[in-house]
Amino acid sequence: MNTNRLETFADGVFAIAATLLILNVDAQVSEDVPDLGGRLLLIWPSYAAYAVTFFTIGIVWVNHHTVMSQIDRADRVFLFLNIGFLMLVAFAPFPTRLIPEHIRGEGARAATLTYGITLVLVAVMFNALWLYASVGARLLRADHDPKVVKGITRSYRLGVPTYLAATLISIVSPTIGVILFAAIAALYILESSVFGRTKQSS
Amino acid sequence: MNTNRLETFADGVFAIAATLLILNVDAQVSEDVPDLGGRLLLIWPSYAAYAVTFFTIGIVWVNHHTVMSQIDRADRVFLFLNIGFLMLVAFAPFPTRLIPEHIRGEGARAATLTYGITLVLVAVMFNALWLYASVGARLLRADHDPKVVKGITRSYRLGVPTYLAATLISIVSPTIGVILFAAIAALYILESSVFGRTKQSS
Amino acid sequence: MNTNRLETFADGVFAIAATLLILNVDAQVSEDVPDLGGRLLLIWPSYAAYAVTFFTIGIVWVNHHTVMSQIDRADRVFLFLNIGFLMLVAFAPFPTRLIPEHIRGEGARAATLTYGITLVLVAVMFNALWLYASVGARLLRADHDPKVVKGITRSYRLGVPTYLAATLISIVSPTIGVILFAAIAALYILESSVFGRTKQSS
Amino acid sequence: MNTNRLETFADGVFAIAATLLILNVDAQVSEDVPDLGGRLLLIWPSYAAYAVTFFTIGIVWVNHHTVMSQIDRADRVFLFLNIGFLMLVAFAPFPTRLIPEHIRGEGARAATLTYGITLVLVAVMFNALWLYASVGARLLRADHDPKVVKGITRSYRLGVPTYLAATLISIVSPTIGVILFAAIAALYILESSVFGRTKQSS
Repeated sequence: MNTNRLETFADGVFAIAATLLILNVDAQVSEDVPDLGGRLLLIWPSYAAYAVTFFTIGIVWVNHHTVMSQIDRADRVFLFLNIGFLMLVAFAPFPTRLIPEHIRGEGARAATLTYGITLVLVAVMFNALWLYASVGARLLRADHDPKVVKGITRSYRLGVPTYLAATLISIVSPTIGVILFAAIAALYILESSVFGRTKQSS
Repeated sequence: MNTNRLETFADGVFAIAATLLILNVDAQVSEDVPDLGGRLLLIWPSYAAYAVTFFTIGIVWVNHHTVMSQIDRADRVFLFLNIGFLMLVAFAPFPTRLIPEHIRGEGARAATLTYGITLVLVAVMFNALWLYASVGARLLRADHDPKVVKGITRSYRLGVPTYLAATLISIVSPTIGVILFAAIAALYILESSVFGRTKQSS
Repeated sequence: MNTNRLETFADGVFAIAATLLILNVDAQVSEDVPDLGGRLLLIWPSYAAYAVTFFTIGIVWVNHHTVMSQIDRADRVFLFLNIGFLMLVAFAPFPTRLIPEHIRGEGARAATLTYGITLVLVAVMFNALWLYASVGARLLRADHDPKVVKGITRSYRLGVPTYLAATLISIVSPTIGVILFAAIAALYILESSVFGRTKQSS
Repeated sequence: MNTNRLETFADGVFAIAATLLILNVDAQVSEDVPDLGGRLLLIWPSYAAYAVTFFTIGIVWVNHHTVMSQIDRADRVFLFLNIGFLMLVAFAPFPTRLIPEHIRGEGARAATLTYGITLVLVAVMFNALWLYASVGARLLRADHDPKVVKGITRSYRLGVPTYLAATLISIVSPTIGVILFAAIAALYILESSVFGRTKQSS
């Protein structure tokens, strides 16, 4: 089985999960709000949560793309690992909504913990599907680049402990946890872009 | 007419139906919930329903993929059978929501029955489109594998009685019915993955 | 400009508009409904509206597919005609919801009229984009089949008066109008399937 | 990295963001509205907002298509610029909803300002991704057309000041601002269609 339709399905889930995030912002403004301008400023944490999760889903999409570029066939195990992975990605809009709603209240810890656990599980499933495909080059293209494969393994392994650490910290301080979730996405984009350009030019 | 655009459209419906499931979970937590942590634990049946239906849609997607891999043209009857089939797949988020909301109350029977009937009808339509395409090799690729075609016919025929049995049982005991819906998806993934790997290695 | 990305975008809009229809059904059942079974039976018009519009969008999708199969390039006018057409298709979930909610009440006429006008406009825009592409073979493939092109022109021209008649009748009797909207879709599928099979075998 | 999957993902976000706009109209009509016909006429600004933003997203989609036709590879920076750009496109349904709800009330200024800022940011990000790709022909196809490239640069640069002017005017007069947002889309379609046809025939 080739991987085209898996990529179409995955891209659909990524695009829909990211685009649905706007419904979280939308729900923050009721139609009969008395002071619209004030309300639109007050809900800035919803915009921040929207942006952080949109970029986080975008990062996961880019990485899924990188993985699939080294793979040229899929078996049933790999398909179901992908479905489990996409199920967790599609779950993300729910905890994303909880954080801006509760970060200033008593539910802050529960909200950031739910968000963190979701991202840890996304990272775990992503490593699982990559390891399944790459160990013994099971599903890799005949002409895969061993250096790229090793690079993927090394860099994706970092995802689980990174998000686990941020999640544990968010139990102690939800605010610092949230800042870390945003910082992880921002640092990844910076590092990966610089790395990408270096590779490009070399 | 070739089948590319049918696959794009079908993959779109599969991806959207699966991703919309998160709205069911989302609706379970109102913004002003007093004890967020407690509420997030209490609604675990919503997470279970989300996971079971996401994987069930994923299984149907994988099977649709398998069917389309043996087909290389589509006529109008086949297109409309597919639209009827996708209409039932896209219906699934609605009964999925009913089960966690009502499984602990008086509506449990109605909820599981609606869910079961939906899955029975999905299985019926799936067999209808496959039989239409495969009988007399009407729409099959010239180089289709007769053994694969027979295997598909044999294995998909099981879908209708399996879901019918679970649905009938859910009338007597909604709880057992729900467990069966989850078990059917889990067993299918296990069996199909092992079978897939055996085929892969042979 | 080739037409691949137009088809991807159009298929996305078709798939999302059709899949969003389930939200109309979903909104008919509140979480704390006392008699779930009774409610699920009472809202059968919502299921009917879901099915009729899903199939109607499916028919439009099939016809758009047929049109695009004769076209191999797109200019700006054609792209914007398509966007206007898709805007009307994506509008359909809204009037679809109005009919089951109001067919038994005073709003029946307004609901069916809104539904009918939407379908008339879809048919008008569809003819506009087809005429723009086909007159003088402006955007047609060099190897287009003149008989197919004439057949498309003849059969799509019927869409506007057919839906206009049903819409006007729905002003007099909303119930008969609704039956006609369903009957048009059903007859089209029957006629087109039989016609398609005849063509196939000849 | 080739650009196919980026286009699939982008087309998904464009299609979903446009199709979700209908939910804004839908929210304007509650199920138990006493005078449905009157309500459906009263909410005409919602239809106008739906149409203007649908076409605006359509224009952005067409332009993204034009840009991608000159590009044949993507690096990480370009991918993340695209994700930021799509994040802003997917944001558009939210301010679109605010305008018809508030244009006749005290929140008119806040609503049009939010809408305008969103479109200014979309235009800024679009120029950023185009400049990144085109400066020094970094990501352009080897056989890109320098005249087309210059034409894109010149015409897209106009987007930022145009929307900025309309946004600033909407602070003084929200009504004129809204008319300008609609006029910009309409003029673009007219001008671009005529220009497209001239190019076609030359």
